[in-house]
This record gives sequence, structure tokens and C-alpha cells, in this order.
Amino acid sequence: MHYDVILSEIYSEARTLKVEGKVTNSIPELARVDSNKFGMHLTTINGEDYGIGDSNEKFSIQSVSKPLTVALAFSFLGEKVWERVGVEPSGNPFNSLVQLEYEKGIPRNPFINAGALVIADILVSHLQNPKEDFLSFIHKISNCDTINYNASIAQSEKENGFRNTALANFLKSFGNITNNVDEVLDFYFHQCSLEMTCKELAHSFFFFANEGYTMLGVPVLNSSQVKRLNAIMQTCGFYDESGEFTYKVGLPGKSGIGGGIAALYPKNFVVVTWSPRLNEKGNSELGMYALEQLTTKTGMSIF
Amino acid sequence: MHYDVILSEIYSEARTLKVEGKVTNSIPELARVDSNKFGMHLTTINGEDYGIGDSNEKFSIQSVSKPLTVALAFSFLGEKVWERVGVEPSGNPFNSLVQLEYEKGIPRNPFINAGALVIADILVSHLQNPKEDFLSFIHKISNCDTINYNASIAQSEKENGFRNTALANFLKSFGNITNNVDEVLDFYFHQCSLEMTCKELAHSFFFFANEGYTMLGVPVLNSSQVKRLNAIMQTCGFYDESGEFTYKVGLPGKSGIGGGIAALYPKNFVVVTWSPRLNEKGNSELGMYALEQLTTKTGMSIF
Amino acid sequence: MHYDVILSEIYSEARTLKVEGKVTNSIPELARVDSNKFGMHLTTINGEDYGIGDSNEKFSIQSVSKPLTVALAFSFLGEKVWERVGVEPSGNPFNSLVQLEYEKGIPRNPFINAGALVIADILVSHLQNPKEDFLSFIHKISNCDTINYNASIAQSEKENGFRNTALANFLKSFGNITNNVDEVLDFYFHQCSLEMTCKELAHSFFFFANEGYTMLGVPVLNSSQVKRLNAIMQTCGFYDESGEFTYKVGLPGKSGIGGGIAALYPKNFVVVTWSPRLNEKGNSELGMYALEQLTTKTGMSIF
Amino acid sequence: MHYDVILSEIYSEARTLKVEGKVTNSIPELARVDSNKFGMHLTTINGEDYGIGDSNEKFSIQSVSKPLTVALAFSFLGEKVWERVGVEPSGNPFNSLVQLEYEKGIPRNPFINAGALVIADILVSHLQNPKEDFLSFIHKISNCDTINYNASIAQSEKENGFRNTALANFLKSFGNITNNVDEVLDFYFHQCSLEMTCKELAHSFFFFANEGYTMLGVPVLNSSQVKRLNAIMQTCGFYDESGEFTYKVGLPGKSGIGGGIAALYPKNFVVVTWSPRLNEKGNSELGMYALEQLTTKTGMSIF
Repeated sequence: MHYDVILSEIYSEARTLKVEGKVTNSIPELARVDSNKFGMHLTTINGEDYGIGDSNEKFSIQSVSKPLTVALAFSFLGEKVWERVGVEPSGNPFNSLVQLEYEKGIPRNPFINAGALVIADILVSHLQNPKEDFLSFIHKISNCDTINYNASIAQSEKENGFRNTALANFLKSFGNITNNVDEVLDFYFHQCSLEMTCKELAHSFFFFANEGYTMLGVPVLNSSQVKRLNAIMQTCGFYDESGEFTYKVGLPGKSGIGGGIAALYPKNFVVVTWSPRLNEKGNSELGMYALEQLTTKTGMSIF
Repeated sequence: MHYDVILSEIYSEARTLKVEGKVTNSIPELARVDSNKFGMHLTTINGEDYGIGDSNEKFSIQSVSKPLTVALAFSFLGEKVWERVGVEPSGNPFNSLVQLEYEKGIPRNPFINAGALVIADILVSHLQNPKEDFLSFIHKISNCDTINYNASIAQSEKENGFRNTALANFLKSFGNITNNVDEVLDFYFHQCSLEMTCKELAHSFFFFANEGYTMLGVPVLNSSQVKRLNAIMQTCGFYDESGEFTYKVGLPGKSGIGGGIAALYPKNFVVVTWSPRLNEKGNSELGMYALEQLTTKTGMSIF
Repeated sequence: MHYDVILSEIYSEARTLKVEGKVTNSIPELARVDSNKFGMHLTTINGEDYGIGDSNEKFSIQSVSKPLTVALAFSFLGEKVWERVGVEPSGNPFNSLVQLEYEKGIPRNPFINAGALVIADILVSHLQNPKEDFLSFIHKISNCDTINYNASIAQSEKENGFRNTALANFLKSFGNITNNVDEVLDFYFHQCSLEMTCKELAHSFFFFANEGYTMLGVPVLNSSQVKRLNAIMQTCGFYDESGEFTYKVGLPGKSGIGGGIAALYPKNFVVVTWSPRLNEKGNSELGMYALEQLTTKTGMSIF
Repeated sequence: MHYDVILSEIYSEARTLKVEGKVTNSIPELARVDSNKFGMHLTTINGEDYGIGDSNEKFSIQSVSKPLTVALAFSFLGEKVWERVGVEPSGNPFNSLVQLEYEKGIPRNPFINAGALVIADILVSHLQNPKEDFLSFIHKISNCDTINYNASIAQSEKENGFRNTALANFLKSFGNITNNVDEVLDFYFHQCSLEMTCKELAHSFFFFANEGYTMLGVPVLNSSQVKRLNAIMQTCGFYDESGEFTYKVGLPGKSGIGGGIAALYPKNFVVVTWSPRLNEKGNSELGMYALEQLTTKTGMSIF
């Protein structure tokens, strides 16, 4: 497979597209990003790296952080995690409160915001210094010590995160947040504020494709556990467009409103795209296109 | 009409009933109240007072405060109030977030918690010293200067009010709270913590039955305006049991989880009951019974 | 009260209004009606009749028939009716299936379509010849033998009534339709196809205002029972605009998509309006206006 | 891979389990089946057959027929199919009407009943003799001419299928059924009444695993198209337990209330299980267990 050729093709084609999506305006800091940025990075299971475009520029990974917190919580609790959050797709927007009310405070899956807040609560309970320790975990899985939170983005999300504050208090009213609400929100806003390049993010997700081992061979989860998280990414990774993504791309993955997407072909590769313009479901328009092209051109989908 | 006889009959009958309801456990302070308390007070349009049982004992009026804040907001804004909150019954529990999401942050009516929070936001905007000024308003309409907030109940509601905090943040995310969320919640928790006797509460509601004038003849709203608020009490005053109350009692009114109910027969009387045991819809079981008996025995319903 | 003067004023004013509403297009027969028709008829408790405009022209009463079928079912079953249908406002469109699913096949009230179908099922069970016997009941309460079904409208509703057919089958799946679905639908489509003038409809509703007695003094229900049905009309008579109607008009009543509205002031009068243009909630725009003017000009509202 | 050994192991273990599920009581004919039946059949991509237990006994495939009708409709319309039905998981029970109302008559995916009815409508439009022609299609893909409908099951479903009749009429009210409702329902009830053995069903699903070609090499869809249908099976094939199945089994598949499940590992094998006891989500309890064991023992999941 000549990934460099394929990435070049996709990049050229993507650059000619008229993109209709808009950069998120959820917080001012994210709204200021250059909407024309587009980067893509693929890391093969053998550790070969292929990047193109703005693939070495840092961006706010936002919800792409969620599989990473879930992995850490899963490593602590194992199957007990699913007593507090489900594994079913939601059929609703990512920040909906409706389903949560019908289902008595058990979020449908760990990738909608409510579920990610429960995961954050678990980490706050299990980590000595939650923010510091989670950052160390990121450094370990990415083999990159310079990755950091963006404090001003975290602060801005706190000041504008009324919906997430509503969700967290709602979960607390059902007893599914055990720590102080503000502390859980602070952790959550920090995890979302992580900044990485496409390459760094691909390396961080490497263990999902590599039966649980990082690029340096450090075990994070066992092979059965990564299969299970990959399965959840497949069915729930793209909010209410998860079916569409599965239909068109056929790879497990996770998107973020910063415009990033991480996806993977188990035992083959990890691929990350970044383009800040989002479609109306909140997923990167160009990223979705690029990944659909990748599996079409390579024939490498899991189905 | 020999109201003293009728109240005695109702009181005697009520005392023989086996009451199944439970005192609210929403906050510890309210849970501690003596569950056997039962008082009733009726004030005629001519100012005659009839009380029985524990009618001169203070209780936490909770949501019975809502028509009073709405009246004050209505006196400031007139019909403009309804741009931010509707007048339709909700068909859902009083603290549901579901409908609010479907209806984009405009609460269905001012008596569900979401609507009352919007009204609180209006008062915070229009009053110089919101809590002090609202208390002065209560003193004026009740002609009783000793009525006060219960600070420990307000504090306890703040510490346990995750659902209301969720609602307020949710409203803020839709732009339908304009002030600081914590300030609005503080006002709201204080209004709910007001303590009155059945008699004081009946006097406070007198202007709803008296075409807008208090017992001392002070105008609060005009006669058209009180009709309109009475109409909202009729359709929305008892959460998701408003139809049942209208069906059985046939008077506009408002209940609270402290066990109080205020109801009125326009141009005839105001009546207040207090009994802390609540049915499963959150309304005072004995209060509902007593008011049904009152309209049955007197034939005085609006229908 | 000079009702003739007041009706003239309202009529003149109404005629100058720019009406934005649209005639229903639910079935071709109803869509063909002259959209400029406007009639109003008021019958006082003493039997005086005041009509204006097209008040002696027949129109399709549609859902205004619902309180009449409920009255007949109530006369058969008494309070047992409410085991199969509730008395709470729905907070949803009149033909919604959503709430029915959450509430396991018990319609919220007898005036949404699902509830009216349950009432129709009760009548099909209790009447020897359902359609003939119900027509006789109408003749009795209206004291008018010429009132009849419109067979072509009933047929057209059957051919286009997919939503009602869905509702009836859905109710059957919950066991809350006991007869053959097609027979119940046939009865329902016939009751909706009844044609009356404003005057005939006012006379038919007379017993609701007259403590249960028709204009000729025939008892239909007792005084307690009509109070209860009036209460349901108040909270549920105008679909998801019941609160608005209560707020603005302050009288119990019922609307239909044929453009008719019947309302009443207990022990005072019955009033019927007809104007086919409907607002977006499905209620007659001019009818709502005329009734609001009537209570404003006369000061006669129940609140 | 010694599939015969693995199937023997799974079969033995499954036989020792205490199964709590119940046979469907949706229609009397299905309720009468022997609840202890259990069969399993695996066909490899090379055409090797491995069966165990009651794998050569006919059972009612019910909803397992849905991917087959979708495949045929997809072969006619291509991507245009998705204008009338979505590809997103629903987050609701398989026969819910709720979501359909919010989403204006476009079913979320072709595997919930509403979606399958739309697919049935498409086939009724495109096939000369719908029932005969669809049966011929089944004979072709299974290479088995003796497969047939069960007329008495189809008839029984028609007589008891109030929920499906409600759904079809509801879809018709939105214009998303174009043929006569009764004709579409008749086709749908017939497709569900198909009877096959585990082996026959595995052969029928062979083309999903074989890039679109049947066991005899007849093309049904192209390789891209089967990938897409496999993707939908992955995210939507198990009603509101699709996430759970993906999590535990990690293969695309489809279940039916007759107790059958067909699943496949692309380019490797097709596997069918049959056991009539259903868990509370409506999926075969023993089938889910057997397939989880299969992927655990073989390590063959797509993730």
C-alpha cells in the first residue's frame, strides 16, 4: 500500500472541494481557528508515519479525548464501568438531556457528553491528582512529553459550558456523579482542551489498533478490551451520525468539535484528520470525506 | 354560607382518613416536619377569616410562592412576560428537562420549575435588592411584616438542588436566563423558603380573588390581569395533576411540596390548606381531599 | 346585557381583521368550504337566541362532537370512563402518538384523537345501533331532528385518515380498543361528520351550561357531572392551545378543524362561532378572537 | 480453525446454561414452538458447512428476513433507498412510533419495523408479483427451492399485528408508504413468515460475507454495497441492543423474534443460530451467548 500516494491524492482532491461547514462557535477560542486548516496523518501498525497538510500543527482535540479517558477508566474498573454508563448508540444529539431523563441518569454510552462526564467522575475518584495524572497517561501512550492542556480554552469552556454544567448537575441529581460537580467539570473541560498534532493524536490512539500496546510496546489494555472499545467507537463515535460514518467509512473512530477525527483499522493503521469546518451533526466535513476516500481507495474497511 | 361549620365537617372527616402520602424528602429540613399537621384557612371576599387545625402554624410555602413572583413580574412587564415563558400545561413532571429541550428553552408555563426560574431571572433584573424587595412585596400584599425567608432551608436547597441547578444552566444555554445563574438560583431558593401560616398565605393570595386589590385595598394588578393569572393557575397549578384538580375541585390554585395549597373562587373567597403528606404527583393528599369536599359541600366551583 | 349589540360589534370588528389562517386540507371535502364564512350564535340560560353572520349555515362540527360523545359515555359508565382515558392536558398535538406510547395506551384526555377513539369504542360497545342511536341522542339534546351525518365527509375521512387508523391500531395493540378497529373508526368518522348550524350546536351544548338539562328540560347528566366535563373542556378543549384559550377567553369550550368552536359560561350562556380559517395550532383564528372579545366586552369569564 | 470442535464446545456449554428468556407471545403460532430448540450452523467462505443441534430444522426467520429485502431493494434503487429510510441506530424499541413522529416519517434505519415496511413498500412497487418474485430471489441466493412462506403464520400476524398496522398507517400519513397499506402489510407479514433451517439461512446470507456473490457465484450486490449493508447490520441489527451485540460479539448480524440470528465475518464465514427464548430486548438469549463464545474462542471479530 503506497500510503504517501493515497494521502496525496486525497489531500489534492479535498482541497478542490467547496466546504459548506462552519467552525464551531461554542467558545470564542475555538471559533478563532483558521477554517482552512487541513491535515492528515496515518501511522501503520509497523510504526511508519505518513503526514500531509497541516498534520504537524496543534489543535484542540476536544471529544477525541473521550476514548482515551474511557480506556483509562476501563483499565481501572474493567466491566464495572458499564454499571454507570451504557454501550448503546443514543439516537440523539451529543448534549441531549432528554434520553438521560427517560433512562434515570445512566447515559447511553461514554461518548455522549453525559457519559464522558461519568467517566470523568470515575477518573477523579481513582486518580491522586486527576489532571496531572491523566496528562502523564497521555504522555505515556503518545510517547510525547510536550502535550499539554490549553488553560484558556478550559477556562472559556467553563465560562460558557452551561449545557455541560446542566448535564453534570442532572447526573448528580440521579446520583451518577459522586464527586463535587465543579471538580468533575474542571477535569472534563481540561481533558477536552488537550492540544495535539495529527501525528501525536495518531500515536496516542495506536494501542487501539495494536491489541492494547503503545508504539513503544507498553500495555494499556488487553486485546479483548481494545476490541470492545473499538466496538463502542464504531457504534457511538460520531454522535447521531455514527451510522452514517459506519456506512461510509467502515472504521471505528471518534470525532471532536475542534475538527479532529481519529479512526483505526485494527492491526493495520491509525489515521487522524483535522479540518475545523463541521457539518450540521458536528463532525468535520472534510475529515469525513477524507476517511471515506481512504477506505474506498484502499479497500480497507472492517466490513 | 356557614363556612365555620363546613370547615369543621371537612376537618373532622379528613382526620379519619388513612393518608398514604409521604412527606417530601427533597431536603432534610423539609423532611423533618410533623407529617400529621393539617390546617385550613378560608378568607371571604368581605374579609371574614375562618381557620381550623394547624392553620396558624408557619410552614414552608415552596412553590405556592410562584403565583406571587409571577404577579410581581407581570406588574413590571405585562404581556411581555409571555415572550420568555408560555401559558400551556406541560404534560410532564414539574422538574422535567425534556420538554424544555424540544421547545428550545422556553418553559411551558411559569409554574413548572423552569418557568419559575425565568420569572426569578426577571425579578433579579427588575429589583434593586431582589431578595429584600420581594420580601417587602410579600409584606405589602399580606399586610404582615413578620413573614420571612428561612435561611437554613434556602441553604439546604442550594446544596441539594442539582436538578434546579441543571435547569437553570440549561435555560442559560438557551439564553433564557440573563443574569448570573448562581444569583438567580439564590433568589429562587429564597422565594421557596418563605414561611407563612395558612392565614397569612390566604391573605397574600387575596388580590387574586379581589380583582387585583389586597385586603387593605392596595392595587397589585388590574382585574383583567388577575383573571389571566387565575386562568394559568387553573390549567397549570398542580403540575401533571392540574387536570385532575380542575376536574375534582374546579378552582384555580397552586400547590407546593411543603404540603401547602392556595386556591380561590374569584369574587368569593381564598382558601389555603396545609398537610405535608404528598401523593405521587407531589401534591398534598389531604389538601386535595379537603378542597374537593369544600366545593362539593358548597357547590362553589367555577364550572 | 345587550348581547345583540355586543355580537354586532364583534362581528363588525372581526370582519375588518386580516385573517392569516388557512382552511384545513386534511380532507378534500373540508378544504372546499368558503374560507370567508363567519357566524356566531349565543343562547342564554333563559333560552334567548342571538345570531349573526352565517350562524344558520350548516358546517362540519368535527371535534366539537367530542364533548357530546363523552357526555353520552359518561352517562353510561360514570367515573369508570376514566379508567380508560385520563383528564390531563397533553402538551402535544391532537393526533400525536408519542405520549400514548410512553403512557401505555391510556390517552391523556378524551379530546385528543386517541381519547376520542376510546370513547367511540365505549359507545360502540354500549349502543345497539351505534350510529343511529348516537344520532338520536343528538336529536334529543338539540331538539332538532334534521341534524345528520355527512356520508361523503365520513367516507373521505376514512380514505385519508391514516393517522387516525394508526392511532386506533396502536390503541388496539395496548388492548384499549375492544371492538373491531374498522367499526370504531367508522363510528368516529361519522361523529366527526355531523353537520350543524351555529344555533343547532349551541342548543346541543346547552345542557353543559344548564346543570345537565337540555333546553326542553330533559336531563342528560347531573349537575356535578357537567361541572366535571366543563373542567376537562377548560384544560383540554383546544389541543395544545388550551392554556392560551383559558388565558385569553376564560371559558370552557371545544374547537374543531371545521372551524367551529362551542364555549359556555355555566348558568349564563352557550356561544358558538364558526370560521374555517385555522391558526397553526388547528383552532379557528376568528373564533378565538371573537370569544376573547366577548369575554372582554362582557366581563363574563369564569375567573 | 477446527470449527467442528469449536461448535461442539459451544453447544455443550450452552446446553448447561440456565436460560431465563421467554419464547415470543406476539402470535400464537410462534408461541407454540419448543423452547428448548437450539441449532447452530457455520458456512466458511470456501463453502464448508458445520452444523450442530437442531440446525436442520425449519424455523420462522421473522426479522432476519430484513437484510434480504433491503439487499433486493438496494439492488433496484442503489443509494436512492436512503432518501426514504436512514442508516442511524434508533435508541428505541424496534416497533416504537415515537421517533418516527419526531423525524417526520423517515424511519431511522431499515431494520426497525417502520424501516422494513418502507423497504416492503419499495419491493411492492418494483416487483411484478411481489410475494412470488421475492420468494424466487430467496431461492436464488440460498440455492434451495423448497424454502417457503408459512401462510398460517402470515395470517396470524395480520390478525394480531395492530402495532405494525399502526406503523404502516402512520408512515402512509407522512407519504412514506406509496402503495395500498394492506398490500404492503401483506407482503411484510409474508416475508417475516419465511421458514428456513440454520443451514439454509446461512447460505442465504453467504453473499454478505462473499463480496456480493452467492455460493454458486451469482452476483447480488457489488462488494462496496455489501460492505455498506454489513455496516448497517453492525450498528442497527439488534434493535436497542445493537451496541451490546457489537460490544460482545463484534460481528455484523441480524436477529429475529423467532429466535434466529444470522451474523458474518466478512471474507471468512457466515454463522446462524436458532434458540427461541428471547431476552428482554427481544434477541435470542442463547444465540447471543453462542456468538459471543464463537468470537472469543476464535478471536475472529472485526475489531
